[in-house]
This record gives sequence, C-alpha cells and structure tokens, in this order.
Amino acid sequence: MSLQSKPVVGVVGVGRMGAAMTLRLRDEGYRLGAVYDVRPEAAEASARESGAPRAGTLAGVTAACDAIVTVVSDDAAMDAIYRESGDSLLEGAGGKLFINCATIAPAVHVEIERRLAARGAASLEACMASSITQAREGTLYLMVAGAPEAFERARPLLSALAGSLRFIGPAGSAAQVKALVNMVMNINTAALAEGLALGDALGLDLTMLREVFAQTGANSRVLETDGADMQNREHDVYFSAAHAAKDSHIATALAAEAGLRLPLAEATAAQYDRMVAAGLGELDKSGIAELTFPGRGPHSDA
Amino acid sequence: MSLQSKPVVGVVGVGRMGAAMTLRLRDEGYRLGAVYDVRPEAAEASARESGAPRAGTLAGVTAACDAIVTVVSDDAAMDAIYRESGDSLLEGAGGKLFINCATIAPAVHVEIERRLAARGAASLEACMASSITQAREGTLYLMVAGAPEAFERARPLLSALAGSLRFIGPAGSAAQVKALVNMVMNINTAALAEGLALGDALGLDLTMLREVFAQTGANSRVLETDGADMQNREHDVYFSAAHAAKDSHIATALAAEAGLRLPLAEATAAQYDRMVAAGLGELDKSGIAELTFPGRGPHSDA
Repeated sequence: MSLQSKPVVGVVGVGRMGAAMTLRLRDEGYRLGAVYDVRPEAAEASARESGAPRAGTLAGVTAACDAIVTVVSDDAAMDAIYRESGDSLLEGAGGKLFINCATIAPAVHVEIERRLAARGAASLEACMASSITQAREGTLYLMVAGAPEAFERARPLLSALAGSLRFIGPAGSAAQVKALVNMVMNINTAALAEGLALGDALGLDLTMLREVFAQTGANSRVLETDGADMQNREHDVYFSAAHAAKDSHIATALAAEAGLRLPLAEATAAQYDRMVAAGLGELDKSGIAELTFPGRGPHSDA
Repeated sequence: MSLQSKPVVGVVGVGRMGAAMTLRLRDEGYRLGAVYDVRPEAAEASARESGAPRAGTLAGVTAACDAIVTVVSDDAAMDAIYRESGDSLLEGAGGKLFINCATIAPAVHVEIERRLAARGAASLEACMASSITQAREGTLYLMVAGAPEAFERARPLLSALAGSLRFIGPAGSAAQVKALVNMVMNINTAALAEGLALGDALGLDLTMLREVFAQTGANSRVLETDGADMQNREHDVYFSAAHAAKDSHIATALAAEAGLRLPLAEATAAQYDRMVAAGLGELDKSGIAELTFPGRGPHSDA
C-alpha cells in the first residue's frame, strides 16, 4: 500500500494503551491528524511523544482525520465521546471510519454503530486480547466485529497494529468474545492464586510446584504470565485488578441476561471486588494472590 | 539392567488403571508375582489378561513379590490393605518395597509409611498426573515422594511406567502436589464450562470461541483436553466427575486445616458435588458443561 493511500489517523483516549498505538501507527507511516484525551496532561504527553497535533475538541478530531481510533476507559466514556449533542466525534462523521478498541459492554458497541451509521459513517470494534507492549510493537491480538466492508476498509490499518486479526461477526460480538476470554482468564488467575497459596501454606517449594503445574492438567496461559509474579509478589500493573473486576462483571451481567448461573465467574468477580475494596485495584491481576496466600494482607473474614 | 536383577512385582487394585500398569510391567520384562483385587472378577480379568497369578490374600501378594504396586480407590481402601491385624500386605513386609499410586489424602501416605517402616519395609508414593492410556504405554507423569534411598531403589521400575519422573519430597508431599494439580485443573475445567456455556447462550460459534481462547489469556491444558468434548457433549469417562469431586475435597480439606479460604476451589467442589448428586458422577469431568450450558440438564435452582 502506498503512503498516499493511507488515511490520516486520530486517536481518542491516549492513556498508556492509546499512546502506544499512536506511536506504532506513526512508525508504520501513518500521518497523525490529532490526539485527544479528557485529561489534558495525557493528550499533551502523547502529542509531544508522537508529534501528533493535540486536538482541543472531539469535533476537531473528526474534522482532522479520515480514521479515528478510540481507546477510552469504560461504557460511560464511550457514550460521552459519541454524544448526540455538544462536542462529539459524531460531528462531521459522514464517510469516515471509527475503530473502537476499548473493552466495553457489547450493547454499547451496537448503539455506537447505530449512531455512526445514521450519519453515514463506518465503524468497527477491534477488541484487544493483549496489552501495551504488544500495541507498541504492532503485535496485538485483535478481535474485530462490524460490517464486513468496514473490516476490509480497515484491514491495512488494523494490520499495522495487530500480529493476529480475527473477524468475529456483527457489532457487539467481538466485545462478547473479549468478555468471555477475560472471564475465563480471570477465573484461571484466581484458581492459580489459590493453588500456589495452598502450596505455600503446606510448605511446598513453589518453583517446583509451578513446574509441575506446567507439565500437567493444571497448566494455563496465566501460569506462564502470572505464576512467578504471584510467588514473588511482583504486581506491577500489566492488566489491573480493577479492569479484571470490570470485565468479570461484564460477563456475569451477560450471563444474568441469558438466565445462566455461573458460580465460578461470580466467585472470581467477588474476589476482584474485594481487591478493589481493599485498595489493591491498581495492582496487576496477579495481585489476587495477595488475597489468598497465608500471611499476606488484607485478611479475609468474608 | 539385566532381567535377573528385576524385582518380582505384584499389583494390588487392578481396576482399569492397575490392570494397565500390570500389562505395561509385563511388557517391560518384569515377572509378575501376583495380582489382587477385592472384587474377584477384576482380579480374575487382570490375571487372565496379564498371565499373572491371582493371589487369594493380601499376605499372599507380599509373600510372592519383591515390589508391590498399589492402586486402590480411596483412603479407606488404602487403610484396609495395610491393616494392622488380619489379612494384610504388612504380613512379611520386611525388606520389600511398596509403591502406592492411588490418589489419597497426604496424611494417609504418612501413616502407611510409618506402618511399613516399623516392619523394615520401604515405601514410596507415586502419584499419577495422567491416566489409563499413559499407564498402558509407560508414559505416566509420576510425582514421587518418600525416602530418597527408596526412590533410587524404585527408579528402574518407576521408569518402566513413567515418561517423566519427578521426586517431590518426604512422604505425603506428592499427594499434596497431586491434590493441588487436580484442584487447579478442576477449577480451570469449571471455568471453561462456564465460558463456553455463556458463548453458547450468546449464539457464538463455539469452535471459533475455542480457537480464540487458545490464542489468548484464556488458554489452558483443559481447553485442549476438554473443550471440544464440552461443545459436543462427549463425556466418555477419562477422569470422572466423582474423582474430580473427591480430589477437590482433598484440597479444600487441606485448605481448611491451613486456615485458608479458597472460594474458587469451594465453588468447584460444589459443582462436582452437584454432578454426583444429579447422577452424573460417572461422566468425565468435562460433563460439568452439562450443568452450565443453556438447555442442558439438570437445571440449577441453587
């Protein structure tokens, strides 16, 4: 693809993830039309780091760009940037492409697609099953949903961000799959924290125990990513406990709507809620081991 | 190792697992001194299949063999074959080697080692983290605990059964690790059953969903072993739900003794208890999906 055919790109929501994606797009030869964040210092930092102009308004982002990537924190923030009146990405949206990378409720994706379609704009959800390092390196695992023609239009840009692209289905379905991925991941994480904690209480060598887990039916991706961190109490945030709580609740809400009872998902959401309540929400999800290991705080009396 | 130096081996408890180990030992050139089972038909079948003499008493097994492998079903059965009076493997045990492969409570291993040591016999626990096919093929993953000199003495025989041997520590510690492996495996299994069930309720393609799980933080060994079976309702027993319930309770009992609260392990034990109560205990552990998927029975009102 020639440089000329690349769309001018804007990024809304330039926290650590959005800022990393901005740098990656720049490195891949995309012209950056604007960066925006409700926190002026975050927008300023990303603008300085990437060389992108900092937009003062959401409408200014839409005006300056052909394709807008949004990476906001939650359903309310997503609703706000696409508000029907006042400053909004919707103003002048016709003909443009919006790619929403935040982890939000499936129904919100469906509603945003509706608002954009009413204005003649295309939209996609591109849910990430990986984190900041992968965003910076362009090796994200992206689950994409929306209209197939929007996917084909966005494919070159998405390929600049992703090591693996998977088209899931209509709007909302990628968010559903993402919610399920994180629900299962969070349960497996909570399980690992319990297994290592009981091993510790029994006086077992946890390095040996992790090696045995890795060779048996106890093996899991989270054993690779979080096992040593749980043992060593290294909880620098990669995927926060607060995010884990949020995602677990997205899944349990979907289950409740579907009339399913999922006791493991509920118990896991309750554990992450306990972390948040104890002021541990900004630890990595591996910090759930702080709830289960003997002698670590906070103590449970629940 | 020459044929002459191999011990004469007996096997006590020749259900499917013990019978498979018996055949494997025969194929590896061990002379079989006796097989024994409390169920005469099981002993008869194994004797016929392997060519081993069927012993009429436990004392007869000890008398006929240098090394005795035991694969009984639970703590009570283990206690019974090593009873202090009446027909028992303890009679004439001095100088012989006993290898206990059943999944039982760690404290029982410690007690049996004490009884054997008092009679001048050596003992080991060799806990299996794999199943019948691996036993037959000599590719078990064996976690071994006991005195190091007993391990060295047993190593050739254990190597005939195992693809991988791991020495864990003193008597009881292999059973602890095994309980932890199965606890984490069972939670991960319950988690997978919930994730696939919710995906089914949402109308997602479960083959696609399993592929996404495999490439993300939701990946696990049980996804490989049980994911398709859950989707396709193929629950031929490989590791039964009743066994999963038993093992989960061994772990939660250890946690209770240690004063730890493990909500995921407890929720998982409760799910497997529900399977047993619903008459589904002889399904494979993957059958837990029958509790979670929409439209599958039994329906939960718990």
